Amino acid sequence: MTALIAIDWGTSSLRAWRLDEGGEILERRRDRLGILKVEGGNFPAAFDKVVGDWVKVSPGAPVLMAGMIGSRQGWVEAPYATCPANAGALAEKLAAVPGNDRVRIVPGLSLREAEAAPDVMRGEETQIFGLDLEDALVILPGTHSKWTSVRGGGIDWFASFMTGEVYDVLRRHSILGRMMQDAPQDGVPAGFAAGLRYALSGRAGTLQSLFSTRTRGLFGELSEQESAGYLSGLLIGAEIREGLAALRARKVEPKDAVLVGADALVNLYASALVQAGIATTIAGEDCSARGLYRIARMAKLI
Amino acid sequence: MTALIAIDWGTSSLRAWRLDEGGEILERRRDRLGILKVEGGNFPAAFDKVVGDWVKVSPGAPVLMAGMIGSRQGWVEAPYATCPANAGALAEKLAAVPGNDRVRIVPGLSLREAEAAPDVMRGEETQIFGLDLEDALVILPGTHSKWTSVRGGGIDWFASFMTGEVYDVLRRHSILGRMMQDAPQDGVPAGFAAGLRYALSGRAGTLQSLFSTRTRGLFGELSEQESAGYLSGLLIGAEIREGLAALRARKVEPKDAVLVGADALVNLYASALVQAGIATTIAGEDCSARGLYRIARMAKLI
Repeated sequence: MTALIAIDWGTSSLRAWRLDEGGEILERRRDRLGILKVEGGNFPAAFDKVVGDWVKVSPGAPVLMAGMIGSRQGWVEAPYATCPANAGALAEKLAAVPGNDRVRIVPGLSLREAEAAPDVMRGEETQIFGLDLEDALVILPGTHSKWTSVRGGGIDWFASFMTGEVYDVLRRHSILGRMMQDAPQDGVPAGFAAGLRYALSGRAGTLQSLFSTRTRGLFGELSEQESAGYLSGLLIGAEIREGLAALRARKVEPKDAVLVGADALVNLYASALVQAGIATTIAGEDCSARGLYRIARMAKLI
Repeated sequence: MTALIAIDWGTSSLRAWRLDEGGEILERRRDRLGILKVEGGNFPAAFDKVVGDWVKVSPGAPVLMAGMIGSRQGWVEAPYATCPANAGALAEKLAAVPGNDRVRIVPGLSLREAEAAPDVMRGEETQIFGLDLEDALVILPGTHSKWTSVRGGGIDWFASFMTGEVYDVLRRHSILGRMMQDAPQDGVPAGFAAGLRYALSGRAGTLQSLFSTRTRGLFGELSEQESAGYLSGLLIGAEIREGLAALRARKVEPKDAVLVGADALVNLYASALVQAGIATTIAGEDCSARGLYRIARMAKLI
């Protein structure tokens, strides 16, 4: 019997789970209906389309959502909880959805530190609490990668890096993309190791090393098949340097990290992090569902 | 009487000058016919269109060109001279243009250093030699900014930064651009000082600080009118940090620099460099013409 319907509703896609009272996953769904694809912002209709059948056959089950669905562009804005925060703090701040009293949204997390710009996450906090870790560095690679410090079971710091989006816009719209051929989606692409090595060497900064994608091509050191992988290695290497520098400023020298995310990308990060002396563990696929279940329990929704 | 027709022929535009025997500029031209806009790569036709009238009425005058016209995508590839190089070294390596024995092209410069990626310039070397400096740091802001070290009258080192292009693709194609309103073209744009200050503080690396354009917007610290200026300040600040770090690795601590380029941009860089403790001098508009004249003299074309 369904005890909870859990949804991780992001910008470009969503995932939904049906869970029983013990937290076992009964059913999984993926949908491309990310919040930016919801026509006219009609979230009640999109919600019906995605999980309406589940809701109908599980009359008692609450629905808990996390991710960009709680942003200003989502169904209803769920104000950020402030860092440091644990799962219990999020459970106390669930946002109600007007017109549908079965649905609640987990707040995102914000971080404000002296002399630093603010930072935010929505959805990643729920994935992390799904891991139920005591102390760890958790890295969530992606469009906007997150490095997250877990201490005493709560998130005490995090930082976002625009790695994925910078790669994407340079690949598709800059002069660097002109001489690139598509690299395979899986595995470590050709050229990646060279780009990573150059970035980790610290021999040149990010804006300077990006130009080397072009010059190495000009000088025959990099083929068109290797350029995209090289650029990816440069940017992931730059993120790792920045992440480690940010941790060093906090007197933290990590030896290992937990990776959360899509298979191909976390494998790439794992291969990169080991070059920087960081051993990695890759988390399973369903940490959002586990995080939503944990928070639902704490909020006594189930 | 015309003694030299000088052309700085770049990717997206060109400038041409008619000079007399003493190097005085008799006439100037600008044209949007950059090498990527020359239909079917028909450079002889484009050349006729741009300065055909000058060539006709100046039967004895040689034509000297610099810039991307000497690249693989240009009229004829002028092999790079290697750094360190002075104006005389370029004068010895002028490339001939098949089918037009009045036209020659100044080679670009390449730099190869141990453990570093290669770097290249085309056109900037001629601008710099037009300044006729003995020892200086010359910065040429733009799509691919160049920091150039002049020692004993020659160029002994340089570095390229993709600042302008990264700004452009993020502005036009990333999530950061979505909440930006156009900033005025001239003067220091609103938000620039805040972005510059954050980048120069070193509080966050480049990929991390880019995300602050978004979060400061979310938290009301940055208006839509200020976001583009803030992003520009972040990136120019990042370039300055990288440039100074690269010089520091060469045991150079510059106190001043010469800026070469378009008015609005060099003024922006001047305002930024002073925040990093670098006093600047802004070079005049015609250094390409002066460089081409100097090299033509050394090559005994005139």
